[in-house]
Amino acid sequence: MQEIINADSVPDVVVQRLPLYVRVLSHFASAGIEVISSEQLGAHLQMTPAQIRKDLSYFGRFGKQGRGYDVGNLAVRLRSILGLDSQWNAVLIGVGRLGRAVVSYPGFEPEGFRIVAVFDADERLVGHEVGSMRVQKLTELEQTVTERDIKIGIVTVPAMYAQEVINQLVRAGVKAILNYAPIPPVVPPDVRVQGVDPVLALQSMTFYLKN
Amino acid sequence: MQEIINADSVPDVVVQRLPLYVRVLSHFASAGIEVISSEQLGAHLQMTPAQIRKDLSYFGRFGKQGRGYDVGNLAVRLRSILGLDSQWNAVLIGVGRLGRAVVSYPGFEPEGFRIVAVFDADERLVGHEVGSMRVQKLTELEQTVTERDIKIGIVTVPAMYAQEVINQLVRAGVKAILNYAPIPPVVPPDVRVQGVDPVLALQSMTFYLKN
Repeated sequence: MQEIINADSVPDVVVQRLPLYVRVLSHFASAGIEVISSEQLGAHLQMTPAQIRKDLSYFGRFGKQGRGYDVGNLAVRLRSILGLDSQWNAVLIGVGRLGRAVVSYPGFEPEGFRIVAVFDADERLVGHEVGSMRVQKLTELEQTVTERDIKIGIVTVPAMYAQEVINQLVRAGVKAILNYAPIPPVVPPDVRVQGVDPVLALQSMTFYLKN
Repeated sequence: MQEIINADSVPDVVVQRLPLYVRVLSHFASAGIEVISSEQLGAHLQMTPAQIRKDLSYFGRFGKQGRGYDVGNLAVRLRSILGLDSQWNAVLIGVGRLGRAVVSYPGFEPEGFRIVAVFDADERLVGHEVGSMRVQKLTELEQTVTERDIKIGIVTVPAMYAQEVINQLVRAGVKAILNYAPIPPVVPPDVRVQGVDPVLALQSMTFYLKN
């Protein structure tokens, strides 16, 4: 099933929540639950049933009036809409301590994300092995991205180098960037960036601890 | 300066953005820039000047008409509002590979976050040293949280144990949880949770790669 959605018609916050829906649905499916109401889904996602119904309405009609959602079917449809039924190749830049931890992170592969090439600006690291890949130099980035059909870049360089590395990824044609560096980068409108930053997450919670 | 804000009066998305403001302002300050316009701030945060002004308006009057914001002053005020001028003690539960990487992450301490105690449900790990702390058993959690004035819990256990561990943190009195487990946990309304999950971040970007 290939469903193509007009991405501009869906609010960004809804897209951000979809992977959580998929998680919760997989959870119910593996517990043997076949049908779920928007109330039950809402309770697990800390949302109201009305929000759930509104979110899902962007992608078509899923529920049956008074009956709820078919867990398996909804999970398959959402996975297809999110592109999670495909394999996605990623390139990682920056093989310091953080980069090596990310390369060895076991959570990517089962979800269809595969780091297929690693790069570093430091000449002394080029040629070394990280996660059974040979560290490449950045001048090879564009060719590797094209040849290996890489759509995702993972940035694990220090903050001061992050914007320049992200510029290089953008020039190489990467359209989605997972940024571990603690800076909000500037990218063209057709490139998506998601930050992974535990300190930012902590800092937005201390507001509530204090106030 | 102790500024107490009514947390309910500020939208959650604004609070989420404040740490980014602080980052960008520190960046400008260290570059020797003393005054900044909402246009310049907006360009670095990929927001409109009007959004910037609206966000900051929740916390008082900062800018001078036609002159912009005083970088140093705004940074200090926002840090105070966010509670970043304090030291926050945290407890970590789950000292497997991920937990050990988080304990040794160098980004927390400079920002005022300190992991002061580590726990694991696995009896075989109790008593071992991780990051120069002795791994404690979970029955000691409540006492440790109280005695050491711990407000933040960091969860690095496998998904299947995460909800139970989060329940224990909530019972022990922790009000802010940084959750590395790939589940959206259920917590009481007075407890904040932020997830750190690179797979979720990737999954919301593949939607845009595909559609």
